[in-house]
Amino acid sequence: MSNASNITAAKGFRTNGTTCGIKVSGKSDLMIIASDTPCAAAGVFTTNKMPGAPVVVSKKHVRNGKAQAIVCNSGVSNVCTGQQGIADALTMCLQTGQNLGIDPADVLVCSTGVIGHMLPMDKIEAGIEKLVPTLAAGPKADEATARAIMTTDLAPKTAHVTFKLASKTIHIGGIAKGSGMIAPNMATMLSFITTDLAITPKLLKQVLKRVADVSYNRISVDEDTSTSDSVLILANGQAGNRIIDKPGKKLDAFEAALTELCKDLAYQIVKDGEGATRVFRAQITGATSIKDANLAGKTIANSPLVKTAIHGNDPNWGRLVMAVGRSGAKVKPNKLDIAIGGTLLCKGGQPVELTKVQLAKVVKHMKSKEVILQVNLNLGKGEAEWLGCDLSREYITINADYTT
Amino acid sequence: MSNASNITAAKGFRTNGTTCGIKVSGKSDLMIIASDTPCAAAGVFTTNKMPGAPVVVSKKHVRNGKAQAIVCNSGVSNVCTGQQGIADALTMCLQTGQNLGIDPADVLVCSTGVIGHMLPMDKIEAGIEKLVPTLAAGPKADEATARAIMTTDLAPKTAHVTFKLASKTIHIGGIAKGSGMIAPNMATMLSFITTDLAITPKLLKQVLKRVADVSYNRISVDEDTSTSDSVLILANGQAGNRIIDKPGKKLDAFEAALTELCKDLAYQIVKDGEGATRVFRAQITGATSIKDANLAGKTIANSPLVKTAIHGNDPNWGRLVMAVGRSGAKVKPNKLDIAIGGTLLCKGGQPVELTKVQLAKVVKHMKSKEVILQVNLNLGKGEAEWLGCDLSREYITINADYTT
Repeated sequence: MSNASNITAAKGFRTNGTTCGIKVSGKSDLMIIASDTPCAAAGVFTTNKMPGAPVVVSKKHVRNGKAQAIVCNSGVSNVCTGQQGIADALTMCLQTGQNLGIDPADVLVCSTGVIGHMLPMDKIEAGIEKLVPTLAAGPKADEATARAIMTTDLAPKTAHVTFKLASKTIHIGGIAKGSGMIAPNMATMLSFITTDLAITPKLLKQVLKRVADVSYNRISVDEDTSTSDSVLILANGQAGNRIIDKPGKKLDAFEAALTELCKDLAYQIVKDGEGATRVFRAQITGATSIKDANLAGKTIANSPLVKTAIHGNDPNWGRLVMAVGRSGAKVKPNKLDIAIGGTLLCKGGQPVELTKVQLAKVVKHMKSKEVILQVNLNLGKGEAEWLGCDLSREYITINADYTT
Repeated sequence: MSNASNITAAKGFRTNGTTCGIKVSGKSDLMIIASDTPCAAAGVFTTNKMPGAPVVVSKKHVRNGKAQAIVCNSGVSNVCTGQQGIADALTMCLQTGQNLGIDPADVLVCSTGVIGHMLPMDKIEAGIEKLVPTLAAGPKADEATARAIMTTDLAPKTAHVTFKLASKTIHIGGIAKGSGMIAPNMATMLSFITTDLAITPKLLKQVLKRVADVSYNRISVDEDTSTSDSVLILANGQAGNRIIDKPGKKLDAFEAALTELCKDLAYQIVKDGEGATRVFRAQITGATSIKDANLAGKTIANSPLVKTAIHGNDPNWGRLVMAVGRSGAKVKPNKLDIAIGGTLLCKGGQPVELTKVQLAKVVKHMKSKEVILQVNLNLGKGEAEWLGCDLSREYITINADYTT
């Protein structure tokens, strides 16, 4: 257990996680994050057209730019559950709001787990009632919260950063979950972020969208996009800074800190990808646009053949050629350069003859915990870095038997 | 070994395969198919923007709608090989043409195997010279040909069909290879087809394109699209039918027969998908368009989470919901019906309560060799069927160690 706070590093937040009995494993499955005072709030949500009921409800509740608490269960996702599912998500908000003494419309709700089952509402309602009096600040409560949103995750994912704004220290803390169905199509996982910054809801929303685009939206474990996943941020202003209400250096400082936090959490998600044994960075340069760089990076990060080559320490750069070629990005065959871990393997679309020493260097790099794949299209200035993980037998084991 | 002819079932074709020494395994790696007389010819080729040199050369040679032979090696794909690669592909045509006594520009060429290596031209040239005198008709030569294009394939893939046109019997024979990098983006494998039909090149090209779209373009093993793959057809007219030179019943009869052949070969490719233990059919109905039905079918056939669920006999229909939702097809959550093997599991976007007997039926079906996934969007009349295979630990084993 870490002995530093994360989700309650920011002033005025309390949290906890517990076991209410949804999971047959008996692992923890319910959490609440609450601010003592009303917050500016923002969210980014899955683009999947079959969103879960909690996504529908949270989108509605965050629309006015304010909220004060988040309630989330794991084990059952409340997706494909019709009107009853919507009613259940609203009941979670109601129960949480009543117990906290706040407006239920200021509660955001998430659920993660298996699709197509109704939530066991008796367990959840009893769980919320028991959980609220235990809310606290500090490492123990933070870790219990991070663990309560895990499904196939092997490790809880937490981060916090601080930055100075005039004389004030601003804290940002975050947790995340997700290790499968992680694909870049916004919001491909759950992440809850708290900060004591004072900021207008409008700017908070804009910043969160931009940050998500360069962090959570540039990772891939598999290519599947969940129906449930959401990134939520609450900013309660208790740091006492003068409220940020326009673009400028202060907003930039916040955006830089939030980007650092979210990239950290995104990296943790990829590292804990289902069955993953290592992470790779697909660094695309020389694309005609950022859009093209993203196409190439995304295709590499998603490619089963690239992912298995990484798993096998195999410097089979032809698979990068294949992936870039099918990505939809503009490519000129005689311009393409490919390097792995800094060693050039393909120059102008043709193989580079390597010495034994060079080849040994590449193979050694392929065995490291973080593999760097560099693709230069040599056509323009578009750049993007994507994070992916290898595809192992363990991914199959985890996913061949999820519900049964 | 089959005792029926396939690639030489059509009159006037000879073929054979041999070992010229490209593969370290010593397995066969070179084949030639030749017609005794000039043919109408057509091809469909990979859409990958990094096509191999043989694709560039074959596209050029087939442009005038005529050809007389196909030469193909396996083991090295001649991709990312620059001007030398083009020269090598042309040399293969030249050597084959000279030995057969035909114009090298009437020879189509393919290569399949690892990317980024130069072809061992001394071995290939010697191989072609030795191979040409052995060309023959009959099951033995046909099987040797089908085996010579295999890479990670476990079984050769062959098919033949006949149909009547007035008093004439028309033969169509085909072979195919491919069990990884199989993704629907044309032409994701190699397939060579021969027929003794008389038909104009223009119509042949149109029919081949349409047939490929409903056969080879509706399968997926993984989502990776090769840089090399091609479907080629030679029609030498030796059946003696009056040449088909316009649309109508005769062309329809040919198209139906060719569709049957190509769907058969496509099925064989999926069945032999790398590591595959079973095939599934994703049957989409009720889409607003065929395009939308294809988006939904393709996403299901490609989804790692669907593929692992199939592998685990897991009736986790929530993954079909997820896949359809992220496919880009128009979906209304409260309209979606999902069935597996005929048993309705999701009706109007909500779970159907199953009896124990019904659940046992679904689980039994999940264990069969061919799993039927039925998705009805209930929005329109668009339909499409896609073929996919499960994702197993064996896929990882095959692909983690391909070059090293």
